[in-house]
Amino acid sequence: MEVFFTFIPKEHQQQQLIAEFPDVEFYFEYKGKSRLPTADIVVTFGEDLSDEDIQQAKKLKWIMVASAGVEKMPHAAILEKGIVVSNVRGIHKTPMTESVLAHLLALKRSLPFIYEQQRKEEWSRKSGSTELSGSTALIIGPGAIGAEIGRLLQAFGVHTIGCNRSGKSADTMEEMVAFGQLIDVLPKVDVVISVLPSTKETKHMLTAEHFQAMKNEAIFMNFGRGDLVEEKVLIEALEKEEIAYAVLDVFEQEPLPKGHPFWSMPNVVVSPHVSSHSEKYVERALEVFVANLKKWLAEDPHPSNLVNMERGY
Amino acid sequence: MEVFFTFIPKEHQQQQLIAEFPDVEFYFEYKGKSRLPTADIVVTFGEDLSDEDIQQAKKLKWIMVASAGVEKMPHAAILEKGIVVSNVRGIHKTPMTESVLAHLLALKRSLPFIYEQQRKEEWSRKSGSTELSGSTALIIGPGAIGAEIGRLLQAFGVHTIGCNRSGKSADTMEEMVAFGQLIDVLPKVDVVISVLPSTKETKHMLTAEHFQAMKNEAIFMNFGRGDLVEEKVLIEALEKEEIAYAVLDVFEQEPLPKGHPFWSMPNVVVSPHVSSHSEKYVERALEVFVANLKKWLAEDPHPSNLVNMERGY
Repeated sequence: MEVFFTFIPKEHQQQQLIAEFPDVEFYFEYKGKSRLPTADIVVTFGEDLSDEDIQQAKKLKWIMVASAGVEKMPHAAILEKGIVVSNVRGIHKTPMTESVLAHLLALKRSLPFIYEQQRKEEWSRKSGSTELSGSTALIIGPGAIGAEIGRLLQAFGVHTIGCNRSGKSADTMEEMVAFGQLIDVLPKVDVVISVLPSTKETKHMLTAEHFQAMKNEAIFMNFGRGDLVEEKVLIEALEKEEIAYAVLDVFEQEPLPKGHPFWSMPNVVVSPHVSSHSEKYVERALEVFVANLKKWLAEDPHPSNLVNMERGY
Repeated sequence: MEVFFTFIPKEHQQQQLIAEFPDVEFYFEYKGKSRLPTADIVVTFGEDLSDEDIQQAKKLKWIMVASAGVEKMPHAAILEKGIVVSNVRGIHKTPMTESVLAHLLALKRSLPFIYEQQRKEEWSRKSGSTELSGSTALIIGPGAIGAEIGRLLQAFGVHTIGCNRSGKSADTMEEMVAFGQLIDVLPKVDVVISVLPSTKETKHMLTAEHFQAMKNEAIFMNFGRGDLVEEKVLIEALEKEEIAYAVLDVFEQEPLPKGHPFWSMPNVVVSPHVSSHSEKYVERALEVFVANLKKWLAEDPHPSNLVNMERGY
């Protein structure tokens, strides 16, 4: 059995794998293609496989994606060949939640102002700081990450409203609405946080009407995928000050090009898609992989975190 | 009975007081002195009363300080005249805790880097972000504010160690040490947070040895009073990189003068003593005052949050 990694874990992590699975041949090649024709399993960050690669991969049965998003993968080819796809969605929840809370608290507690004053060596106490406590937050897409965000928001005294397709109850959400009712709750919400994946249904799901329905003081945070809202819609809402801030970790085009208006808008924070970063990332991804590989070798072809490639998540 | 405010609450707040206590005469004068000779009660932010003012205040029985620190008050004169002093220590806990968490998460999740990249319009994902989860924090002075900080740190998966005079157990602290044992726990701590008041005992309590005992990766946060550590000791620890960061909301000299090394040190965050700021501050202080004034008029001379002027907190 051949396992082909298209990224390079640390040396000791490679050695652990080799020691734990003596009957498996492991190959590691950064953005590599050489072992695709013979690999049974491919472990990838999900951005380096083309339709052609899948055609070439005659023996491939399982793609383990060491990230959350699969939208850059060749869905049709994978579906056609019946290749199992799994991801590591659980492992992002701690760093992503910490990033969401960091950005939110930073705005409430005036950190951009404080840093700017320090650069100018100016002592001003006119921070205008406000409190997160007592706010209402809407979490769009309350899966594992959304639930963790909700849990910590509640600890800060925030009222949590979740929004998913069905409107069915979700962990750590005090209220729930379905996608279709989104616009009804926006007027009472102080913070709108999306952690939605990119699917046919979520693409451009937020429209100008949604931003018009939000409070002028609202903070919009997109930590899901950049195509949730058309850029021009969001830019217009920000220029008209229909909302107070946008904190964006994801964009329609990444990297965000030089000269893009988001870079210099005073009510936008550009985070270069780093909210899931953590020193513990690869370690945790390998833990998920090792557990699944054991199952696989025991002929249980159901890795955890299976991705439905038709649905897209 | 005369109540003299040396700051000006909002008009509607003044009207509420006057309506609620028809038999009390209220005077409001910013940093005022005019009513000191006749006032029975003074409500102050605690920085505008001199020894002479106290001598002049022949009828003064109670000073309500609408902040936490009393170190700028004329202690000897107040003690000699037997004037009751109370403060509002409880009301800082929400904004201060949010500020502590904001700064801590900002450093862990690379917000200074993200803001700096945005200013340069540069997309770099080399954030080097780490996680707060799994850290160990030492909270020096776990009173109302420290307990709230501990509660939220625990929600983020942080192990909490409290440090007070006696080492007696305190809310939301998983371990406790006495002041004298401080140096023993520092080597295992990732974040050191002080919310201590300024007293004879806490002045210059942290020494060079304490910083040498901390991890090189440690973040030191002073949100108590600036004289906890001599500036030159802290500067030396930072220059030698004995710790990774200092986040300072308080200083030996405030405002921090232009040209002071702290302003430009890359491992220092200068917060201009704004961590307790909140749009809800005066409202909450007045709630404490109203409850105490009712007690006072009912001849119960024991306002909540009494300050022992000999001890200093």
